[in-house]
Amino acid sequence: MYDLIDKKRYGGKLTCEEIDFIVKGFTDGDIPDYQMAAFLMAVCLNGMDKEETVRLTLAMAHSGDMLDLSPIKGVKVDKHSTGGVGDKTTLVIGAMVAALGIPVAKMSGRGLGHTGGTIDKLESIPGFNTSISTDKFFEDVNRLKFAVAGQTANLAPADKKIYALRDVTATVSSLPLIASSIMSKKLASGADVIVLDVKTGSGAFMKTLKDSVALAAAMVQIGNGAGRKTYGVITDMNQPLGRAVGNTLEVIEAINALKGNAPEDLMEDALVLGQYMVYGAGAADSPEEARKMLEKTIEDGSALKKFAEMVEAQGGDPSYIYDTDKFEKAKFVEPALSPADGYVRTIKTDDVGIASLILGGGRETKEDVIDHAVGLIIEKKIGDEVKKGEPLAYIHANDKEKLEAAKERLISAYTIGEKPEKLPLHVYGTVTEDKIVFEQEGLSEEACPGGVNLFGDH
Amino acid sequence: MYDLIDKKRYGGKLTCEEIDFIVKGFTDGDIPDYQMAAFLMAVCLNGMDKEETVRLTLAMAHSGDMLDLSPIKGVKVDKHSTGGVGDKTTLVIGAMVAALGIPVAKMSGRGLGHTGGTIDKLESIPGFNTSISTDKFFEDVNRLKFAVAGQTANLAPADKKIYALRDVTATVSSLPLIASSIMSKKLASGADVIVLDVKTGSGAFMKTLKDSVALAAAMVQIGNGAGRKTYGVITDMNQPLGRAVGNTLEVIEAINALKGNAPEDLMEDALVLGQYMVYGAGAADSPEEARKMLEKTIEDGSALKKFAEMVEAQGGDPSYIYDTDKFEKAKFVEPALSPADGYVRTIKTDDVGIASLILGGGRETKEDVIDHAVGLIIEKKIGDEVKKGEPLAYIHANDKEKLEAAKERLISAYTIGEKPEKLPLHVYGTVTEDKIVFEQEGLSEEACPGGVNLFGDH
Repeated sequence: MYDLIDKKRYGGKLTCEEIDFIVKGFTDGDIPDYQMAAFLMAVCLNGMDKEETVRLTLAMAHSGDMLDLSPIKGVKVDKHSTGGVGDKTTLVIGAMVAALGIPVAKMSGRGLGHTGGTIDKLESIPGFNTSISTDKFFEDVNRLKFAVAGQTANLAPADKKIYALRDVTATVSSLPLIASSIMSKKLASGADVIVLDVKTGSGAFMKTLKDSVALAAAMVQIGNGAGRKTYGVITDMNQPLGRAVGNTLEVIEAINALKGNAPEDLMEDALVLGQYMVYGAGAADSPEEARKMLEKTIEDGSALKKFAEMVEAQGGDPSYIYDTDKFEKAKFVEPALSPADGYVRTIKTDDVGIASLILGGGRETKEDVIDHAVGLIIEKKIGDEVKKGEPLAYIHANDKEKLEAAKERLISAYTIGEKPEKLPLHVYGTVTEDKIVFEQEGLSEEACPGGVNLFGDH
Repeated sequence: MYDLIDKKRYGGKLTCEEIDFIVKGFTDGDIPDYQMAAFLMAVCLNGMDKEETVRLTLAMAHSGDMLDLSPIKGVKVDKHSTGGVGDKTTLVIGAMVAALGIPVAKMSGRGLGHTGGTIDKLESIPGFNTSISTDKFFEDVNRLKFAVAGQTANLAPADKKIYALRDVTATVSSLPLIASSIMSKKLASGADVIVLDVKTGSGAFMKTLKDSVALAAAMVQIGNGAGRKTYGVITDMNQPLGRAVGNTLEVIEAINALKGNAPEDLMEDALVLGQYMVYGAGAADSPEEARKMLEKTIEDGSALKKFAEMVEAQGGDPSYIYDTDKFEKAKFVEPALSPADGYVRTIKTDDVGIASLILGGGRETKEDVIDHAVGLIIEKKIGDEVKKGEPLAYIHANDKEKLEAAKERLISAYTIGEKPEKLPLHVYGTVTEDKIVFEQEGLSEEACPGGVNLFGDH
């Protein structure tokens, strides 16, 4: 290990055998933390090239269970988001794609976060059970093309152990380490096609377009390098996606979207991500054709029907889908009022997430129990005109004290002032194996000054 | 600690308080190895500036005992060598400088190495005792101006702990870390004036002139930055110093030097190092004047007398000094013969040291017992003409098998061929607080292309 640390310290390129040795040795406890920490810092400062990063990802993926999805008929498509506030796209996309006959076998973990994950959101529906057996999961996917289960397999334990060390040694922010960490779990999850939703902006892990594009490009390179068809879509997280933040509230917004009443940004994200899933699965000749197919599942009600079928199959009460008024509501709903006249210039999206967390809508520790009913409905988004005393958002709370704290946090997240020069886009660009296509002129220069350097730029 | 790792990771400059926190925290066990390892790698790759390095050195120096030499009258002068093969200069310099009335209070440890340290060498003299009390040590120095004692104080424990971690995390070769490691112990040793003998070449820690000058400059900056008058002399280690390698053999060579029969390189080193000790102590108006004073101590026999006095005071038999034939000899003395005609082009000096170690002249582990009589007498040095079958060196051994192994190692250390274009110098240059003076034109360009960058260059 000493020699490998030394090699990376001087910017050397590690062989496949050397990377396997490091990952296995550290996972097995043969390589001590202090040597791994020195190695990770050397990687942070000297980088890893594409081949090294692909191998690192594969080594971490193979450190635990590799899911076998072969009982599912057809091309298995997975979608992964780097995480954001108000991100309920999985619910919308899953129903649309499954309605087209493409299997959506969604396994999700219960992570920590400002709002719950996909599983927590679905559990807002009375009776909905994500603890289903593997047999039932495969059966449901084959029959309905759509099932959502809790993740119980031991995926990429090497990544867990390495991440825990990075977290305490200031070695988190390294492109090859971040990309390989995310992708190791995706590769272990067994999908044939992977569509990555890489968020960018104030509420995203990557705050700048440049970093987001670099991460997307690295992950797409890794995925394709590991033999999986992989696409990356850069979507906005400078403000919450849609208007609802919180588990029940987000499920209702997703259901409304399936009924054709989606906020524009939510539907745009869902369609762009969905089109690469459909196209990647080989069910359309082009992403554009796939998009039209997806739009039709909303128009003809087949996506909504698919969602209700999936809910019913997993023990949920489908009547809630057709009548969202049935969902349990929070005790208190109060507006957070604008402190000034003007336009919304920026929203500290992370703080909106924290407001939801304060209300009880997310988990700070694994033991926290989620309150499904609480959350926020955003009334004013970036560029909107607002008068002093007008609601910026409505706070849904079950506790008066938490309500006040969340309200304060929400209001402080807003900057009200002059009309902003430009509004955030919904989608910034897409990354495929061989190219990056941006949605607007000028973004290329912003994202990749001097061209994208996938692995050297950190 | 996380924030400090992160700061150094991004090339930030640490404050004094931050450095103190790291050194104290790690020494006390509050900062875990893995965080320190990540931090050290960040220092290796992003460096430390002069202020940071001085503070790091001081923090490590103050982590344990700080010797108080105030019972010794006069300016206390210390000399430190970065280590080499056949380096017996301390014995020669100590006697010369003390003969001029300047106190030489030498405390040495028993390190690992190819040959013994100063203490081991002196213990070749029957009866010589380095385990003397602090009181006697100070008394001897005040009376005779010369005493040599084993180091028992707990000097710079932070450095010991940090070095042990660097040793297993590939973070040894970093200029600020190396310089601060050496200087922390020197500062804790309490001398007012420090003269550093920085070796350069195949048998030195720093193999190139550039690295040696950078280390010397960094240490001189640290010493002066910490309020000690510090000088650095760059001396050659492309071949053993003098002709003797091994404890008794080196003591005899040092005694002969005090009698006026020194190999040229040994005496040149001793005079240049000694002149900065004398000048630094304020006993001469210039280094040149100091050199003349030192030369006189050889001519008038006062240095030899001083050495004998010191030996007698510490229980050694002074008759050995006047008659070196009395020293116990090794059982076998055999030549290592040249395998070819030609000139000595290079000598792998490290391998000559290993030959001595094989014979039993040094320590690989702390438990090893040194055989004082064994070693080598070098007959052919770089540039010397040699015929096939002529002795390159004589091996002094107490064991036939070891003799053969050492002989083989010695022969393989030599390259015999065309006459070399240039011979190694004895002294390459000297570093003082405000300048570096090289002994020959052209060395400046070799050592400092584009100027010396004391702390950024790593």
